Amino acid sequence: MPPVALALVHHPVRDRSGAIITTAVTNLDVHDIARTARTYDLAAYYLVTPIEAQRVLVERILAHWRDGAGARRVPERSVALSICVVVPTLEAAVEHMAARAGRSPRTFVTGARAPAGKRVLDGAEARSRMSEAPSLILFGTGHGLTPETVEAADHVLAPIRSGASYNHLSVRAAVAITLDRLFGEGGSQLRSQGGD
Amino acid sequence: MPPVALALVHHPVRDRSGAIITTAVTNLDVHDIARTARTYDLAAYYLVTPIEAQRVLVERILAHWRDGAGARRVPERSVALSICVVVPTLEAAVEHMAARAGRSPRTFVTGARAPAGKRVLDGAEARSRMSEAPSLILFGTGHGLTPETVEAADHVLAPIRSGASYNHLSVRAAVAITLDRLFGEGGSQLRSQGGD
Repeated sequence: MPPVALALVHHPVRDRSGAIITTAVTNLDVHDIARTARTYDLAAYYLVTPIEAQRVLVERILAHWRDGAGARRVPERSVALSICVVVPTLEAAVEHMAARAGRSPRTFVTGARAPAGKRVLDGAEARSRMSEAPSLILFGTGHGLTPETVEAADHVLAPIRSGASYNHLSVRAAVAITLDRLFGEGGSQLRSQGGD
Repeated sequence: MPPVALALVHHPVRDRSGAIITTAVTNLDVHDIARTARTYDLAAYYLVTPIEAQRVLVERILAHWRDGAGARRVPERSVALSICVVVPTLEAAVEHMAARAGRSPRTFVTGARAPAGKRVLDGAEARSRMSEAPSLILFGTGHGLTPETVEAADHVLAPIRSGASYNHLSVRAAVAITLDRLFGEGGSQLRSQGGD
């Protein structure tokens, strides 16, 4: 299986009104999403922000947990955070992954609603595409990725709960559910444990 | 379908060494898990802590977002947090749910590992049990629910990734994946949207 990575995009993303903004990186997004990405065997977790001070901050968090006092106290956190890569732009994430994998990744965008005029892939179709080439799954912070980012992507993943009356998952929950649908073994692996 | 609720347990839970502790309620656990629970149509989200000062703090957070400035600014957050109920003990959560539903809920425990000597339910079995009676799904903070809580429960849900080499999901991610496996429509609902 070629490598799969995810990118958490802090710019460009939309706010409530649709305006393009840059959101702040939060400590918990670093930790929670790294743990989820590592649990589902992703090759990398790209934190994308153009704000240099925020990249410096994240690098400091990573150093503490990868090599510093945090790594000694909570070794499994070091394992999760070892896959984090901090980059200024989405293009830089794509280039970093291409350099590592030897070829450019295909990009897959996510969102709470299916974009008009674009075909969305269900889990089986997405896994099939991901088996062919390196893949980078994009998640937007704020109120989601911009129409330009969606338009430029190779593929669109189906929304998680577009039919629900209430549909406001956090990006942390959306990442967890998306990776589980794509790469989780569901009940199958677990059924075999029953009864012991 | 009878009501399903979840409880986030801050006591009694285990620490890294297995000792029984009380963890602190975090603001983000209130918000993230409420949004996930509301998205999957749960009837209630019980925050369980014996520490009165923490219950007061959570009630203040809830008041801000349900009725205060937060509700006016982010109305959908008010909808999510409306299902939160703050209680001192797990027994109080069970009693509250029993009073509302007219009969006692069956309890389902979760955890990163299957407990020895207990049968675990896969998704289909769990849904079948949940269709028969009100249900309360318990999630532990810290390093998980105590053996006594697991022993006293009616059912044990299968662990999410017990076969993975790395298996350290946050409780926020575990809640999201568990509810999606139980109540998410997966790709089926989404496939019908493709191509428009």
